[in-house]
Amino acid sequence: MSAIGTLYIMSAPSGAGKSSLISALLSSDIGNASVSVSHTTRAPRPGEIDGQHYHFVDVDTFKQLIEANEFFEWAEVFGNFYGTSKAAIEVQLASGTDVFLDIDWQGAQQVKKLMPEAQGVFILPPSRAELERRLIGRGQDSDEVIAGRMAQAISEMSHYNEYDFILVNDDFDTTLNQLSAIVIGQRQRKASQVAAYSDMLKDLLAE
Amino acid sequence: MSAIGTLYIMSAPSGAGKSSLISALLSSDIGNASVSVSHTTRAPRPGEIDGQHYHFVDVDTFKQLIEANEFFEWAEVFGNFYGTSKAAIEVQLASGTDVFLDIDWQGAQQVKKLMPEAQGVFILPPSRAELERRLIGRGQDSDEVIAGRMAQAISEMSHYNEYDFILVNDDFDTTLNQLSAIVIGQRQRKASQVAAYSDMLKDLLAE
Repeated sequence: MSAIGTLYIMSAPSGAGKSSLISALLSSDIGNASVSVSHTTRAPRPGEIDGQHYHFVDVDTFKQLIEANEFFEWAEVFGNFYGTSKAAIEVQLASGTDVFLDIDWQGAQQVKKLMPEAQGVFILPPSRAELERRLIGRGQDSDEVIAGRMAQAISEMSHYNEYDFILVNDDFDTTLNQLSAIVIGQRQRKASQVAAYSDMLKDLLAE
Repeated sequence: MSAIGTLYIMSAPSGAGKSSLISALLSSDIGNASVSVSHTTRAPRPGEIDGQHYHFVDVDTFKQLIEANEFFEWAEVFGNFYGTSKAAIEVQLASGTDVFLDIDWQGAQQVKKLMPEAQGVFILPPSRAELERRLIGRGQDSDEVIAGRMAQAISEMSHYNEYDFILVNDDFDTTLNQLSAIVIGQRQRKASQVAAYSDMLKDLLAE
């Protein structure tokens, strides 16, 4: 008796509160939920733990994993490689754990193509004014830097339509409850429940 | 700005707790949720209010509604007609209300055919032994009557596979939370959210 986990693809523009929401959800009593741990070729920063924050590997190893088709998605960012291992996620899902992938729309498209049953969740800020306020931050950046952030946020948000769920993060606790409801609701879907209750169903339906 | 409601098709064998769950959900703070009110040709029972418990109509009126293709589904039971009006439900859904249809697997098949986006929820008892205990009730019925109820329950349960969600009603409060999560989660689906936030999305995405 084992449920089947769901893979959640979480995307948002900067300033929408995505990381805080995922982190609060995983700290709640929801159970059987975890972030996926990515592979990267960049050096660990102080305090980062191998296998917890990232799987730190060298470039040769990373390229071998690409060759072996081991990644759901991967990208090169500022000369470093980042990727999401299929094998690690599939083991977690098979054990009934919901897995949260924190990636942008490009990664989301790759994952959705390889695993159409993954559920995309896009998180939006509640208004343009609030987004600007969050992107201005501590007021230490130039107008040009802030305009660049806004342009990038708009570019990311233009892909909201490629996701299954949309959360509008106005009040944090409300949004967290909505995210939690998505996860608990999906666990009641037929495929998960039939896997979790196969023995009970046989017993119930015996003539 | 108006969300789009979801039509929930709720089915279960006798003794699974379906009516209590629907009733508790609608009494909770979930908001924007309602049962559909059926049409019937049977006479009102003491205390039943027209338009609240049923729309009470005569047989000629009912047959005219059938001719006009006004029913999602209808059936004749012990000489009385029962039916679910499409028009009434569509008005509720368009106003952003989730509507709960309490019907058996035959009605469910008809509704799902006409409105594939309706979400079927099947409620199961937690075990064969518990189902028997609930069907025996107060112990005033013959073995034959109880065996008949069990056969009917098994027949209804054999259709669980035609539903989108399956709830196993072991602990009532847990199951109520799961049903509530399904409803809140579905409200975050893209189609509902895009309808609810169309103005905000235009504002957010303006270049």
